[in-house]
Amino acid sequence: MIEDKNQSRTSISELGEFKLIDHLTQNFKIKHTSTVKGVGDDAAVLAINAKQQLVTTDLLIEGVHFDLSYMPLKHLGYKAVMVNLSDVYAMNGKASQITVSIAISNRFPLEAVEELYEGIYLACKGYNIDLVGGDTTSSVTGLVISITAIGEVEKENVVYRNTAKPNDLLVVTGDLGAAYLGLQVLEREKQVFEVNPNSQPDLSEYSYLIERQLKPEARKDMVKLLSDLEVKPTAMIDISDGLSSEILHICTQSKVGCNLYEEKIPLDPQVISACEEFELNSTTIALSGGEDYELLFTISQEDFPKIKGNPHLTVIGHITDESLGANLVTRAGQQIKLTAQGWNSLKQ
Amino acid sequence: MIEDKNQSRTSISELGEFKLIDHLTQNFKIKHTSTVKGVGDDAAVLAINAKQQLVTTDLLIEGVHFDLSYMPLKHLGYKAVMVNLSDVYAMNGKASQITVSIAISNRFPLEAVEELYEGIYLACKGYNIDLVGGDTTSSVTGLVISITAIGEVEKENVVYRNTAKPNDLLVVTGDLGAAYLGLQVLEREKQVFEVNPNSQPDLSEYSYLIERQLKPEARKDMVKLLSDLEVKPTAMIDISDGLSSEILHICTQSKVGCNLYEEKIPLDPQVISACEEFELNSTTIALSGGEDYELLFTISQEDFPKIKGNPHLTVIGHITDESLGANLVTRAGQQIKLTAQGWNSLKQ
Repeated sequence: MIEDKNQSRTSISELGEFKLIDHLTQNFKIKHTSTVKGVGDDAAVLAINAKQQLVTTDLLIEGVHFDLSYMPLKHLGYKAVMVNLSDVYAMNGKASQITVSIAISNRFPLEAVEELYEGIYLACKGYNIDLVGGDTTSSVTGLVISITAIGEVEKENVVYRNTAKPNDLLVVTGDLGAAYLGLQVLEREKQVFEVNPNSQPDLSEYSYLIERQLKPEARKDMVKLLSDLEVKPTAMIDISDGLSSEILHICTQSKVGCNLYEEKIPLDPQVISACEEFELNSTTIALSGGEDYELLFTISQEDFPKIKGNPHLTVIGHITDESLGANLVTRAGQQIKLTAQGWNSLKQ
Repeated sequence: MIEDKNQSRTSISELGEFKLIDHLTQNFKIKHTSTVKGVGDDAAVLAINAKQQLVTTDLLIEGVHFDLSYMPLKHLGYKAVMVNLSDVYAMNGKASQITVSIAISNRFPLEAVEELYEGIYLACKGYNIDLVGGDTTSSVTGLVISITAIGEVEKENVVYRNTAKPNDLLVVTGDLGAAYLGLQVLEREKQVFEVNPNSQPDLSEYSYLIERQLKPEARKDMVKLLSDLEVKPTAMIDISDGLSSEILHICTQSKVGCNLYEEKIPLDPQVISACEEFELNSTTIALSGGEDYELLFTISQEDFPKIKGNPHLTVIGHITDESLGANLVTRAGQQIKLTAQGWNSLKQ
């Protein structure tokens, strides 16, 4: 990755901050009429109609959120955008603009930052997003990426976390646990590589897991699907920290309980086989793994026929009265209290 | 500062991220009807009327932008907000919301983060700003603060950098160079302290300089003043990197030249005396010092009577044709080409 790029290194300080920004953002084209002014002034200027606006931000720190020894910078750029867009989609909104701030140390040549921006560019292109500003500065040690995403939603369509009701169904998009297992595979390969740099690993059997870790996709498509199906969730959140943590957010904020059925949790076959190989419990991974960037939502029971049989959506439980608590119902029929053991960056 | 606070340290990891956010943001009250939903969901929800919206973001890194050995955390929090609001005011807009993301290492106890948020709270209170979201994570080493500010402006009132015209007057608010000299005083005292920890410095003669460094104020008042005076600048920028760098931004983006008169540059008496003491050229400090957070703008000559004699506004030059270049006219009447030697964080 970065280490392979010695052939043509350009020092970033040669360019200076303003030329660097120009250089990195010159290929980004404005796509939204709401973007009145993008990069290049004190602030971006957005013109908004009667819709409500969404603003979300995430801060990614080298050594905490990513390890550049197995995360290519292009993928990192892409993923950093996805993490933010995912939050806009989790409000049932449409993402339209981002700002990108980075802090970089001297060890990064221009080519490394270009790679990062290539990933950001691809994400913007694929998800129809305008890059409208940011900040570029130096860091003492590692790479820091801070992205703010802006989106919009019709007032009547916004979906919060705190509006789930007893008897609602608990639904998840896609499948869970793969991103975490992808990270385990990459970390194991890193250790193998450190012992034997000539090893040629065959990672094809983990391809889905690695892709979910390195190139996650925010579920813009699911927001559209729900709209097409004429289903408005009663509550929604994206799964960044792990299923249990997100369910507990919905339950706590909505003042409800839930039953989550272990047997219903959607798992990819690669997740099941990797869990066997790593001697991990697949339910634990799905509950606590994190970084899946799927959507978790609740719907009224009367909407069930609209989603029934849809291969992208899985009903994994239902909402109950607050007094009943948030529970996992195991395959053996046992009820276990759900606890958030999700990825907590403050505990590292 | 942090080191003095050993008496009651609370580990942040005891609280966890979500309780930490709740804890830190519980005193922030929503002030704007446009803030539909603040902290606590995937994204903030803002409802905007027909106005245009402004979005700006800044990333502050420990060891690059601030040194905690002389920057109290409360002041840092305040200043981090000011840096962002200043960009909104530089568009002739009104700031209304911010998001605050921080990355903190284990060496910071809860009390330190609380101090930081006290400063953010005071800034929000004083400038009528809603805190609407953010991200809290751990860092491997230093403190990282990323703030995004959102504001609004009537379409006809927005002021860009690229719209200055030949013969416009070049105007600056307040005075320049004090924040940089405040930093020099604080750095000198830090060195004295390292040699003799019992020294009791009398910094009263530098009080204005230190205040400008530690507690800068964004010029919301100047945006109001210009509105009251019925002056709409033809171009505007805030002075974060130093006067020369900002003038060159206006000239380059507006495709104009300028004459800046050395004798007109507004300097506080403390700046003049500190420059003598430090054997620094006061013009160089004003041109390149940075962090003044004053506003630099251009106005049509016909607006001159409206600002004439106003103690907050100083005409420091005028815009010329692009072919004449951007020049400093010295006290001796010599023309020198302006170069940006402003604070450039990428060159550190």
